[in-house]
Amino acid sequence: MRVSQFFLSTLKEAPAEAELVSHRLMLRAGFIKRLGSGLYTWMPLGLRVLRKVEAVVREEMNRAGALELLMPAVQPAELWQETGRWDKFGPQMLKIKDRHEREFCFGPTHEEVITDMARREIKSYRQLPLNFYQIQTKFRDEIRPRFGVMRAREFMMKDAYSFHTDFASLQQTYQVMYAAYSRIFTRLGLEFRAVAADTGAIGGSGSHEFHVLADSGEDAIAYCPDSDYAANVELAEAVAPDATLPEPGQDINKVATPNQHSIEEVAAFLNLPVTQLVKTLVVEQGDGVVALLVRGDHQLNEIKAAKLLGVDEIRFASDAEVREVTGCAPGSIGPVGLTVRVVADRSVAVMADFVCGANEAGYHFTGVNFGRDLPLPEVADIRNAVAGDASPDGKGVLAMCRGIEVGHIFQLRTNYSAPMACQYLDEQGKTQVAEMGCYGIGVSRIVAAAIEQNFDARGMTLPVALAPFSIAIVPVGYQKSEQVREVADKLYAELVASGIDVLLDDRNERPGVMFADMELIGMPHRVVIGERGLKDGMVEYQGRTDTAATSVSLLDIHTHVMQILQK
Amino acid sequence: MRVSQFFLSTLKEAPAEAELVSHRLMLRAGFIKRLGSGLYTWMPLGLRVLRKVEAVVREEMNRAGALELLMPAVQPAELWQETGRWDKFGPQMLKIKDRHEREFCFGPTHEEVITDMARREIKSYRQLPLNFYQIQTKFRDEIRPRFGVMRAREFMMKDAYSFHTDFASLQQTYQVMYAAYSRIFTRLGLEFRAVAADTGAIGGSGSHEFHVLADSGEDAIAYCPDSDYAANVELAEAVAPDATLPEPGQDINKVATPNQHSIEEVAAFLNLPVTQLVKTLVVEQGDGVVALLVRGDHQLNEIKAAKLLGVDEIRFASDAEVREVTGCAPGSIGPVGLTVRVVADRSVAVMADFVCGANEAGYHFTGVNFGRDLPLPEVADIRNAVAGDASPDGKGVLAMCRGIEVGHIFQLRTNYSAPMACQYLDEQGKTQVAEMGCYGIGVSRIVAAAIEQNFDARGMTLPVALAPFSIAIVPVGYQKSEQVREVADKLYAELVASGIDVLLDDRNERPGVMFADMELIGMPHRVVIGERGLKDGMVEYQGRTDTAATSVSLLDIHTHVMQILQK
Repeated sequence: MRVSQFFLSTLKEAPAEAELVSHRLMLRAGFIKRLGSGLYTWMPLGLRVLRKVEAVVREEMNRAGALELLMPAVQPAELWQETGRWDKFGPQMLKIKDRHEREFCFGPTHEEVITDMARREIKSYRQLPLNFYQIQTKFRDEIRPRFGVMRAREFMMKDAYSFHTDFASLQQTYQVMYAAYSRIFTRLGLEFRAVAADTGAIGGSGSHEFHVLADSGEDAIAYCPDSDYAANVELAEAVAPDATLPEPGQDINKVATPNQHSIEEVAAFLNLPVTQLVKTLVVEQGDGVVALLVRGDHQLNEIKAAKLLGVDEIRFASDAEVREVTGCAPGSIGPVGLTVRVVADRSVAVMADFVCGANEAGYHFTGVNFGRDLPLPEVADIRNAVAGDASPDGKGVLAMCRGIEVGHIFQLRTNYSAPMACQYLDEQGKTQVAEMGCYGIGVSRIVAAAIEQNFDARGMTLPVALAPFSIAIVPVGYQKSEQVREVADKLYAELVASGIDVLLDDRNERPGVMFADMELIGMPHRVVIGERGLKDGMVEYQGRTDTAATSVSLLDIHTHVMQILQK
Repeated sequence: MRVSQFFLSTLKEAPAEAELVSHRLMLRAGFIKRLGSGLYTWMPLGLRVLRKVEAVVREEMNRAGALELLMPAVQPAELWQETGRWDKFGPQMLKIKDRHEREFCFGPTHEEVITDMARREIKSYRQLPLNFYQIQTKFRDEIRPRFGVMRAREFMMKDAYSFHTDFASLQQTYQVMYAAYSRIFTRLGLEFRAVAADTGAIGGSGSHEFHVLADSGEDAIAYCPDSDYAANVELAEAVAPDATLPEPGQDINKVATPNQHSIEEVAAFLNLPVTQLVKTLVVEQGDGVVALLVRGDHQLNEIKAAKLLGVDEIRFASDAEVREVTGCAPGSIGPVGLTVRVVADRSVAVMADFVCGANEAGYHFTGVNFGRDLPLPEVADIRNAVAGDASPDGKGVLAMCRGIEVGHIFQLRTNYSAPMACQYLDEQGKTQVAEMGCYGIGVSRIVAAAIEQNFDARGMTLPVALAPFSIAIVPVGYQKSEQVREVADKLYAELVASGIDVLLDDRNERPGVMFADMELIGMPHRVVIGERGLKDGMVEYQGRTDTAATSVSLLDIHTHVMQILQK
């Protein structure tokens, strides 16, 4: 493509409201233009990137045996009422009434539609397993759309749904999808991790999120550099310390800690490491409260605690409730002498001679020991895992990173097929409910996530698999020097003939402007052709992240570029 | 693709509500499944066809220099209010309110969105011309969706919009699009015509519809087999006869025509050709009425008549009004003695000794002559053209056919750019309004239209460019005979390696079932492999529309197929 016949529309500055690097760069590079809140037009340059993602996703889904179809974006309310999600989905669902006042939605996802199709089409176990997918525009009416296409309202998604006779078949396809997703992100040149995810209210045994790693990621991920283990911090198990409860070494002692409010302040005042302290958190359960104990340097994991207590969400006790149970305001409370249920985190359960609040304002106990000063507690994993914890798979220690969720695979089991009666006849002629899986990829979000992972001060540094073009030819003086023009046109024609996606900057612009544009839009490779070099039969090659250009003979440049691109 | 790994879902009978051949065949072949009124899922088999259309459209649009982008489906009301179309578009527009009660629509078309983008991006004449297109899901809330994807509510469209400094540049791109559309329909293997179309309320000088020719088409088209001339019958000029008004040969005579109501009955009763009779139609204009005269065998063209009278739509006078003006009920009325405005069609204006109603129930005049029995009339083209009329381009005579509109190109001029202030600076630095064109193709409709043109009693007979696969291999006894299986697998592998889209029917079905399925879904070519033939080293080839199979040596079959497909 020649720039003169394309539509480059770069900006020096991004609009002020763009907070995220990817949003700023996509606007500056002219990848996208904002139409309204959470609504973006993909301009020709950005669409090339989106289509590259789409093509890789499609190829790998096909290779994995999934069958592409295309369901309507507009879906009748009746199907959602069958699963109860018409009311439960909430205001993210964009509801619509047609000219006859019938209710529809702009599909935020397609479980109901595909299950309706499947229950009409699947008659026999002989037809199973089946895995259908589509690549399609979805709409979720986010309350605060932001970050450009990272959290847009209208977005492009690949969603797949599989149907099975039994759980074993579902697990097999789940593994096939897991492998396909790994190939997709690998081929796109992205650093990613598959992360064990919460199966939430749906239950079922398996769910993984695929995260592109980036410092700006919304999700904190605990992973083991020595193994495949990775989990959202909210879910990562904090394994029990490889230790038993030591014998007491100190007597219990009440000490004054005046005006020391935080754990850090108390530790500093007592000249003790914060790891020697125990935090007591009082939360509600039913009519009463429970005291949860975590080590001073740890954070309570509210999801784990909620599961333990059998509630949807943790609610902390009010100051009045805390006072009623402990006789003291929060800040100096502790487990000694409490008559309510006490649950200690696994790390707390192996602490001796620890410090905790004395249930008296301005006082703490030191030298506290389980089994002597208070009963041996109930023990559970109720904290966030931290870097340095043993990996739950026993293969090393955990490290932490941040990620952007771009894929999610899920064993749905019969959560949709049972209420919608998606059934088949088994070998004995008996009616059975199909097992289901679902597998999503945020196609448009991948573009933003890839940029969050690949940028520098000058713009995007996209992998070749994702860049709008593979290589830029930048002739200095294309419109003025016949020699430059001839050489540039010839190299352009040769590379196009070799099947390379080339962008020839044939504008009448200063070199600085062209270089800045090519760097901003993330061109991975660049060949500069100028009269000065051509005197010696040389042109310049530079990779996007190279610190300097390399002189290459004009005779070798085609081969040189092909070799680099084939790497 | 192997059928065992695909999803074939054919039906013996189509649902009763499917009236049109293409709708019936698409349902029977399992191309589409109905989700709701005017909402269809494209199943894997049908989607393959849709994608083939899409790919050809994309290739030819790119080749014509258009730049692909992708605009949101959901559009803010404010833009439509700028052009006044928010109210004018009518109930076909699916209006939506988001969670903040802001108004949007599911885009039925994108003039407003693209013009908004262009007015922000286009600054200088140097950037023009530009031609952007997208291939996207649209929604039009048809009052009575029917005929499957032919008139669905949700459908796939290619829409392009061009921007220009002046009309000459618009005309140039219009010609480029005209040529690109012709290439698209030619490559898809369809018989089509570009038809001059009404520019309607928008005005402007140019608009063409592209019609796929089919007997079931909704539009009647007049075309000249000896030239490029083609027009919707509603618009085709009925040229003035190459004749002058003859001298009267008969005296006017009032004859009784008792109980003869239609023109045909009167002609038969008088033993005269219907071409000797004149029909008188009384229509309203302002406070009064006008009498329109057309020859007995011709039909009034209401669009031409409306234009002549300067009204939006023709309204016929009531019986009471007719009686007031003529003194007689419709059936025996005529122009003789009328005092209202009388307009004769060009063919009537050269008639002598004609027959018309005598404005007296049960009586007609014969031997009527203009200039003697009534004044020379006002003359205009107010009838539908018919087969045998001279072609308006003077190059032969018109023939008639029926067509399905699958494309429409349009010189919009400044109808959107002026109200939306889409401007640029010209060479003199003066602000100018951009000229615009728009160019649509009904991508999903093409699939239905192609089937209307290509079917027989056994199913679809699609061109290779559109068929879901190029060729079917049908082994008789694939699961039982090792020899058959080996030969079939080998040929399949060879054809796949040659880049051919092959479907291998590896099911354990009777040959009749497999043949019927392959014919129904429109496989253009078929190779049958059976033990009997293999004894002599032979397999059978048959084209979808061939009356019999040809025996081909197993050694030659690969070459044979490749030669046929390359034709």
